[in-house]
Amino acid sequence: MSNLIREEIQALSAYHVPPAEDLIKLDAMENPYPLPDEIQSLWLAVLAKAEINRYPDPAAQKLSKKIKQVMCVAEKQRIILGNGSDELIQIMAMAVAKPGRSILAPEPSFVMYKMIATFVGMNYIGVPLNDDFSLDIEVMLSAIKTHQPSLIFLAYPNNPSGNCFNESEIESILNTAEGLVVLDEAYHPFSNHSFMPRLGEFENLLVMRTVSKMGMAGLRLGMLAGAEKWITEFDKIRLPYNINVLTQLSVEFALEHNDVFEQQAQLICQQREVLLVALAAMDNIQVYPSQANFILIRLLSADANDVFECLKKQGILIKNLHPAGALLQQCLRLTVGTPAQNEACLAALKECLSR
Amino acid sequence: MSNLIREEIQALSAYHVPPAEDLIKLDAMENPYPLPDEIQSLWLAVLAKAEINRYPDPAAQKLSKKIKQVMCVAEKQRIILGNGSDELIQIMAMAVAKPGRSILAPEPSFVMYKMIATFVGMNYIGVPLNDDFSLDIEVMLSAIKTHQPSLIFLAYPNNPSGNCFNESEIESILNTAEGLVVLDEAYHPFSNHSFMPRLGEFENLLVMRTVSKMGMAGLRLGMLAGAEKWITEFDKIRLPYNINVLTQLSVEFALEHNDVFEQQAQLICQQREVLLVALAAMDNIQVYPSQANFILIRLLSADANDVFECLKKQGILIKNLHPAGALLQQCLRLTVGTPAQNEACLAALKECLSR
Repeated sequence: MSNLIREEIQALSAYHVPPAEDLIKLDAMENPYPLPDEIQSLWLAVLAKAEINRYPDPAAQKLSKKIKQVMCVAEKQRIILGNGSDELIQIMAMAVAKPGRSILAPEPSFVMYKMIATFVGMNYIGVPLNDDFSLDIEVMLSAIKTHQPSLIFLAYPNNPSGNCFNESEIESILNTAEGLVVLDEAYHPFSNHSFMPRLGEFENLLVMRTVSKMGMAGLRLGMLAGAEKWITEFDKIRLPYNINVLTQLSVEFALEHNDVFEQQAQLICQQREVLLVALAAMDNIQVYPSQANFILIRLLSADANDVFECLKKQGILIKNLHPAGALLQQCLRLTVGTPAQNEACLAALKECLSR
Repeated sequence: MSNLIREEIQALSAYHVPPAEDLIKLDAMENPYPLPDEIQSLWLAVLAKAEINRYPDPAAQKLSKKIKQVMCVAEKQRIILGNGSDELIQIMAMAVAKPGRSILAPEPSFVMYKMIATFVGMNYIGVPLNDDFSLDIEVMLSAIKTHQPSLIFLAYPNNPSGNCFNESEIESILNTAEGLVVLDEAYHPFSNHSFMPRLGEFENLLVMRTVSKMGMAGLRLGMLAGAEKWITEFDKIRLPYNINVLTQLSVEFALEHNDVFEQQAQLICQQREVLLVALAAMDNIQVYPSQANFILIRLLSADANDVFECLKKQGILIKNLHPAGALLQQCLRLTVGTPAQNEACLAALKECLSR
């Protein structure tokens, strides 16, 4: 029975999430602001009406309608909802998975693209970005022609680098690829760029969003928008009651108060600029520009592992990207928090770098 | 691009859930009883403390501990949680899926075993049950030897027939199979039988449960218990934050008040007996015994499609199994509801059969 589990799965390590305990949590791109009290009371009144003994609406019709409106999805485009973007990535992969088929993404990018390729038995092709985390478009187009990937994922802005790839280079990818190209716009609330308005222009374009970074990471809701002909097929693979009653009601309610989340996103963007300036003023750090709610830095003289541990000792949990290697050597990723959290983070970082 | 989506997926129809509107809903094995008011207030107080802006505990540690205790999982066994049993079936299938590998189940049984086999690109082998929905054990063992399925699913009690398969025949399946054998105990709250205490006895045994039929179908929580060596591998494929914050808090809270659900299950079992007696007294119906919260009947002189539509016109939604054919010809499945719902269902059924 030792051959029962596929070798590729046996070879995997489970996705590790470090315990945060009482640390200031700046590792996971969460919105640091809770719901305002008056909104929370209204929310609980909505949940009081939830029929938890009944299965959820399998099509999540009310929520879907609200999401299309708030996220400006054109009427003729269709959407599908998932438990976070993760489930949507998996659904797309399962729909196209065959021996020999592949998923392609720039590297470094969101780690689940590669992991899910393994889950569904597909090949994964990682195409290195340039040193400044821009697309190496010649290599990219050449890899697409060679490998003919069924799925290409472009995080826009990219995680963990924070930048948006060049728009005309993305267009050339869309025009070259004979498979589907997914623009993963998880960090859209903090960026000025989106391919959502361009869905009708490219047959193979899909746009993915999530409410996680908006302030609802705990609810697990992702959304994929695209042409009817693709979404219809993905919907066949979606497990019928995938979005539970409480998530449907909560996100629908929250999006009726979208101004709250937009204000929080504005605060976060302002704080991002404050952090960028402060970090740029520090010695021996390379700071990368960001269109997201996090900032990537590279340590030019200190060791990332040491600084990560030092920050933790001072009560700050960030993401150490150094173990990923390649372009991320000596890199740390800081989520933008509240002003107080960011000040604490900067002070601790100065302290750790001065040792 | 027309070949991009696998042919098997293109050939599928999406899982159809009929709209219930204002009908008495006896189609989906839901517990008809809501949370008592005093429990509901306590529940909302728990949700008020939910940090929806933070990702959920990826390991759902508190909830897992509570579930192990309430569902009597032995200390040395491990569990994994999913968004309903559906996600767990998919995780197991993905872990073993390779070209040529298969999933085997008796037929008729829960339809997702077959659908998920298709989702992950595995073969599906359905072994017909006897006319009384018992296992045809000779054919079953022979099919296992021939096809060497990687996964066998046994719903226990079986859906849609309501019976528990013979225990010693299940033992012979466990001893014959070289793949994993999953006892799907979704209807355990209404049955006196379980393989949970026997997990340590068979290397290849896994036991699956859900809170859906207990009274929490809207929350989507399933659980799979088994040996460390299997669950560790499945956990690598589980999407890291699959159980959201509200489900974790709600089910943990609900299971602290498990007596409420046990009392509701007792009421449902009593009503099942009332229904069984009343149905047995009706002419031209074959009633099958049930260890679940539903009853399967076969119409001996009327047409199931007609009676299903007639019941719907009278405000009762049940499940018409006639379209599935084979052993389910002229069969209807009635979920046990409240006394008033069951009386309405019986009265409508009498009316429809007398036409």
